[in-house]
Amino acid sequence: MIAKKMQKYVEGSSVTRAMFEEGKRLAGIYGAENVYDFSLGNPSVEPPKAVKESMIDVLEHVHPNKVHGYMNNAGYEEVREAIAQSLNRKFDTHFDQKNIIMTVGAAGGLNVALKTIIDPGDEVIAFAPYFGEYNNYVANFDGVMVAISPSIPDFQPNLEELKTKITAKTKAVIVNTPNNPTGVIYSEETIQKLADILREKEKEFGTAIYLIADEPYRELAYDGADVPYLTKYYEDTIVGYSYSKSLSLPGERIGYLVIPNEVDDFENVVNAATIATRILGFVNAPSLQQLAVAKCLDQTTDIAIYDENRKLLYNKLKELGFTCAKPEGAFYMWVKSLEEDDSAFVAKAKEFNLLLVPGSAFMCPGYVRIAYCVDKSMIEHSFAAFEKLAESYAEKR
Amino acid sequence: MIAKKMQKYVEGSSVTRAMFEEGKRLAGIYGAENVYDFSLGNPSVEPPKAVKESMIDVLEHVHPNKVHGYMNNAGYEEVREAIAQSLNRKFDTHFDQKNIIMTVGAAGGLNVALKTIIDPGDEVIAFAPYFGEYNNYVANFDGVMVAISPSIPDFQPNLEELKTKITAKTKAVIVNTPNNPTGVIYSEETIQKLADILREKEKEFGTAIYLIADEPYRELAYDGADVPYLTKYYEDTIVGYSYSKSLSLPGERIGYLVIPNEVDDFENVVNAATIATRILGFVNAPSLQQLAVAKCLDQTTDIAIYDENRKLLYNKLKELGFTCAKPEGAFYMWVKSLEEDDSAFVAKAKEFNLLLVPGSAFMCPGYVRIAYCVDKSMIEHSFAAFEKLAESYAEKR
Repeated sequence: MIAKKMQKYVEGSSVTRAMFEEGKRLAGIYGAENVYDFSLGNPSVEPPKAVKESMIDVLEHVHPNKVHGYMNNAGYEEVREAIAQSLNRKFDTHFDQKNIIMTVGAAGGLNVALKTIIDPGDEVIAFAPYFGEYNNYVANFDGVMVAISPSIPDFQPNLEELKTKITAKTKAVIVNTPNNPTGVIYSEETIQKLADILREKEKEFGTAIYLIADEPYRELAYDGADVPYLTKYYEDTIVGYSYSKSLSLPGERIGYLVIPNEVDDFENVVNAATIATRILGFVNAPSLQQLAVAKCLDQTTDIAIYDENRKLLYNKLKELGFTCAKPEGAFYMWVKSLEEDDSAFVAKAKEFNLLLVPGSAFMCPGYVRIAYCVDKSMIEHSFAAFEKLAESYAEKR
Repeated sequence: MIAKKMQKYVEGSSVTRAMFEEGKRLAGIYGAENVYDFSLGNPSVEPPKAVKESMIDVLEHVHPNKVHGYMNNAGYEEVREAIAQSLNRKFDTHFDQKNIIMTVGAAGGLNVALKTIIDPGDEVIAFAPYFGEYNNYVANFDGVMVAISPSIPDFQPNLEELKTKITAKTKAVIVNTPNNPTGVIYSEETIQKLADILREKEKEFGTAIYLIADEPYRELAYDGADVPYLTKYYEDTIVGYSYSKSLSLPGERIGYLVIPNEVDDFENVVNAATIATRILGFVNAPSLQQLAVAKCLDQTTDIAIYDENRKLLYNKLKELGFTCAKPEGAFYMWVKSLEEDDSAFVAKAKEFNLLLVPGSAFMCPGYVRIAYCVDKSMIEHSFAAFEKLAESYAEKR
């Protein structure tokens, strides 16, 4: 018998699997080229050439027991120092290696951060719509997830509601900007207001409230948009980063946490996070990937390709009358469902071979997420289907 | 403030860190070549050449979005199938890809297995001496660790005590053979008796008791010793494997779980373990490493080097009058402390620049672990120090 705690996950997963199987079934009937799968956030753009070159260079020139051996659970000192200095150059920060803990992707990093600070019953706040896995990560440590309702139509965090939801038990607030699923970037003004609220509430309750910045999409910002670096606005910030999107390495599970000196209880937080990396079973971030990304710190995948997809799809959806959040970053478009029930809308879209994700999966019903990290040609070929989808609702009215 | 749950870990870690710092301090005073660090299980033998060749081959010839992209959370289907078939050839089993879940090393695999089956208050049994991290892994899921006292001097599992410790709450029994820290291999007779007891107790309590076989040292067996494959002796067995030692890849975090069809609640266990891989934040085992190890399934690092170290050290320690468990596998020697307090003995050893690990760290005071996965020359140079250590106790008598 599996754990009772796992039973609801297994039941829920059959729905996701059914959706995945349905996609394969459709591809079998209509041909893969006639099924428009916008459901996955799997990067379609290749990693920069420097990534492959760096990996081969490390394999050819560094002793294999160093490349593949154990190191400090927090990661190789020289890799952490290189990342710290790269951040300092980019954001005018003052980190060094002791502020960096290498992690098994951002998902690993978030779990390490939560293990470090969350006791059973502690509250963690996130702004809907948000990545549904946060619920599971917080549940891993018996924390209580508190969702703040969406701010429509700009999808900036709803700060008025935040004020009313922070309690003496609030241990962390998670923000994700550029945002999955909306593509929205939280403005500097928003961040400043958010920081002011958190500081005020820390004082009111005599607690530390950690701001956890989940930043896998940091480099995916378009039109020269600025993505504020949150440690500069709020002392108790922990940043979780991943190379999954910036270097198109999601399968490699490589990222890091930034824990600035200014963070409340700094020494204990760093020590506990290092220990959490070990005892959660990560032990350390994959070693070859640590050494490889350290050689590619100023590289990113070709963002222009996603940008082209973004404009193409956004313009078409607007032309067809869809309502979209302004897509400023990441590789997602957040579109208002043409009926109240987003799951019914997703089912309708599937009739036209369009695979979308319902907003309910992001704690925000009434919307759908379209992942445009796909081939441009698929987007172009999907236009007729989106048109039919829009028409099918026009007929109903 | 860090979580209350983490505070004891942080306090405990300062002891370990002090030990590590002490090693560095000694190296600074006496020179690294005059400090004999037998404390770490970090493989000293290089990975087989095929490992590097396979990694480069994958990087050169497989599309980068495949090599580094997301796949099923359980791992690439073709990798899992190749591993299943390799196991079938070696052990006459009948696995296929659905029985294999790729994991972030054995530590990741054990956490996935425990998340899958353990609810708060469920009991997990292990046989002392055992790898102390098991305590932390079980605590991650609020399970209760039940230690069985050691069977001296053979260090086979104490099955008589096992019978008295299994309750209706026993959800799992962890075994680790070849064993860390003793180097002992559990005999086929032992395994058969263990299986009989578990079956009997399952019937008595009407429960399923999972046998979790932690097998990172499987290939490190000397003198042609046989290491029974546990799924063949007991139906409810889950195997956790790692390439950390067999291919000298501990930093890469690559391993797998085997969940045979015969396991109680098989479909749910496989689904839950796949979901646990995702929600614990592993997401999937590192992708390049999955593809690389699949090309090296019949390879192992050069075990003869460890074997030579083993004989060299064992013979010398016997000659000096130390009492050692018979070292049949892994790369550890388990030696009786020359005084009751193993921590005091470890401190005394340090006076001669010998760094050992106290048996208390493995729930078995009165012994120490010597890791001989080091350069042969270090072992040779350490003999004088071991001799002085033995003499220092002879004088006292």
